[in-house]
Amino acid sequence: MATLVQEKTQQAVSILQEKGVDMWLTFVRETRAAGDPMLPIIFGTDLTWQSALIMTRSGERIAILGNLEADTAQNTGAYDTIVGYDLSVRQALQDTIRRLDPKQIAVNISRNDPFADGLSSGLGELLRDYLGEYAGRIISAEPVINAVRGRKTAEEQRRIRAAIASTADIYAATYPFVKAGQTEREIAAHMHAETLKRGLGFAWEQKFCPAVNAGPDSPIGHAAPTEIRVEPGQIVHFDFGVLQEDYTSDIQRVMYVLRPGESQAPAEVQHGFDTARAAIEAAMALIKPGATGLEVDTAARKIVTEAGFTEFKHALGHQMGRSVHDGGALLGPLWEKYGETPNMPLEVGQVFTIEPSLMVAGHGCIGIEEDIVVTETGCEYLGAPQTELIYAG
Amino acid sequence: MATLVQEKTQQAVSILQEKGVDMWLTFVRETRAAGDPMLPIIFGTDLTWQSALIMTRSGERIAILGNLEADTAQNTGAYDTIVGYDLSVRQALQDTIRRLDPKQIAVNISRNDPFADGLSSGLGELLRDYLGEYAGRIISAEPVINAVRGRKTAEEQRRIRAAIASTADIYAATYPFVKAGQTEREIAAHMHAETLKRGLGFAWEQKFCPAVNAGPDSPIGHAAPTEIRVEPGQIVHFDFGVLQEDYTSDIQRVMYVLRPGESQAPAEVQHGFDTARAAIEAAMALIKPGATGLEVDTAARKIVTEAGFTEFKHALGHQMGRSVHDGGALLGPLWEKYGETPNMPLEVGQVFTIEPSLMVAGHGCIGIEEDIVVTETGCEYLGAPQTELIYAG
Repeated sequence: MATLVQEKTQQAVSILQEKGVDMWLTFVRETRAAGDPMLPIIFGTDLTWQSALIMTRSGERIAILGNLEADTAQNTGAYDTIVGYDLSVRQALQDTIRRLDPKQIAVNISRNDPFADGLSSGLGELLRDYLGEYAGRIISAEPVINAVRGRKTAEEQRRIRAAIASTADIYAATYPFVKAGQTEREIAAHMHAETLKRGLGFAWEQKFCPAVNAGPDSPIGHAAPTEIRVEPGQIVHFDFGVLQEDYTSDIQRVMYVLRPGESQAPAEVQHGFDTARAAIEAAMALIKPGATGLEVDTAARKIVTEAGFTEFKHALGHQMGRSVHDGGALLGPLWEKYGETPNMPLEVGQVFTIEPSLMVAGHGCIGIEEDIVVTETGCEYLGAPQTELIYAG
Repeated sequence: MATLVQEKTQQAVSILQEKGVDMWLTFVRETRAAGDPMLPIIFGTDLTWQSALIMTRSGERIAILGNLEADTAQNTGAYDTIVGYDLSVRQALQDTIRRLDPKQIAVNISRNDPFADGLSSGLGELLRDYLGEYAGRIISAEPVINAVRGRKTAEEQRRIRAAIASTADIYAATYPFVKAGQTEREIAAHMHAETLKRGLGFAWEQKFCPAVNAGPDSPIGHAAPTEIRVEPGQIVHFDFGVLQEDYTSDIQRVMYVLRPGESQAPAEVQHGFDTARAAIEAAMALIKPGATGLEVDTAARKIVTEAGFTEFKHALGHQMGRSVHDGGALLGPLWEKYGETPNMPLEVGQVFTIEPSLMVAGHGCIGIEEDIVVTETGCEYLGAPQTELIYAG
């Protein structure tokens, strides 16, 4: 069976053909210091000295790298041609480029997408020196990378579904644990233990994973759980994901802590929950190949504001995969920090989060986050969504 | 007590004063994708949206970042001024730059040093746009970063010594385990277990850490241990380091497997060992503030070649710290792949590996690697060096 690196480098060649790009060149060094985010996908281990990973429209896959790492390249089984060097990558790189004479050399430079921007500034200057007259043929690899990274193969989707299933298990083992009097940190510690005993990692820094927000005064955002205690009448909000077989999940859930005498949440809390659900459904109704994330975000955002809540200050959703924020097209508004990513058309095989949020005054944050995959005709959930409030006593 | 992030950001201000640089600006986004290698040192956690971390010669430390991460910045206790935004970093960044009106804006761009080259290419284009007329004041932060990263504080040196002591423990628990008939992989698995039971991490990817080379046919370099079996008459070579309290060690050791009737290694093996030892001593005799790594490398390299061995095809040594290859000045030859790093003068507080290697025909690789710190007057070992061959039966 092909490894994921073999599968993804093959996929990259077919994407070069589709997009009419002659060559994609990933240029890296000392990737333990600051790796190109595409390296785990197209190579699978770190590289030390200046290394060029080249794929061509004609189907060649070439690795030019330090001799001490040539065996590692061989072992990937993903590169047909491996060229080792001791003193400088320059000659081998120049020889290869001259032989192939590509009309376009796509390199990892992007204003919009951090995952397509793996070439660091000084290394980019060196690369231009090495390429000499060919430097004029450099184009951004952003469209190639967005496709390679975004279009999840069957194996990638299997891993993501497995990570989501584990996340659901951990949530299920957490809900009965949540009770008035506990601190956010105690709840997070319980979820850490449940994660580690399953042999899993965390989708983002453990200190912030899960986020647990008890009630209206808990700091929302990328903040660590606090000593705030769960109280009756509060919404308890979670944001959590695991890392399993190198792929992630990212799921938000909400509970309501019943007050003495209550058998269900007050109307304003239920209204908040129903609004978030409606925003998710509205988004999913619009997601299909060719739609833009801007349209999808706008529709969901409108449902939240028209229901009387303050507009959420983040994008509706992001791609997810090997990284929990996986780059490329975004379900988001055209805020400057997002660049052009909300205008990129959606494609089959992309995996997105959908995560509207809103504050219910006096009770706390409602944030529901589901993970979905874009299909030929629309999209579908990758795990069971939260369709009802979960109650804690 | 000051945290390490507080200590290092204070140190950075004093380095800006020493070097006469008005401002150091680290600009990042989505650091889970591809982090600037300085971020763990000057901030300590990942950042999601475009974020500017600014230090000035006048002593200001300013963080401009997404509102959802403002609490995290506050919690570092390392930034006096925290400016949050929702839509775009542009305005707050421009206002800050105008107010400070720096003559130089040092940014993380370097041809030579991956650790000083954390600004990715597309993000650098965006930064130039945001800076407008001030973009002309951009200089490379390489000298600032080399000093901040290279000059280890007392606390950093304590952590490195602790990592080295743990490494020595793990080696001591490994030597008695090594016997003829074992595979390289079995020995590596033993060292993995010894590391994990101490609650430690690995200095580089676990698959390659340790490297274990039994005899002359084992692939040397950044290669994973193989099914090759230890045999009498072989040199067994190790390259191993741990990650402890976020700092690393990097130590190579050599054993000799006695043949029936032998009570010591053959003369050629001992000659190889003595040569590597002599190269280390020659290097240490030259290391002091102001010396260059080129001089040090040249002296050690000469001892190896004059003793009749083939020249090693790597640098004599590299800096070590939070990352096992920690950037900046290198003890190395002027090979193009190393850029100008062998010409950078050595400084007090820098930690280096010294790792000459050579092949003893028919027996295997001798590589000894010691970790040292540069002092006011020279240098000193950070752990007990290997001064004699270790024998396996």
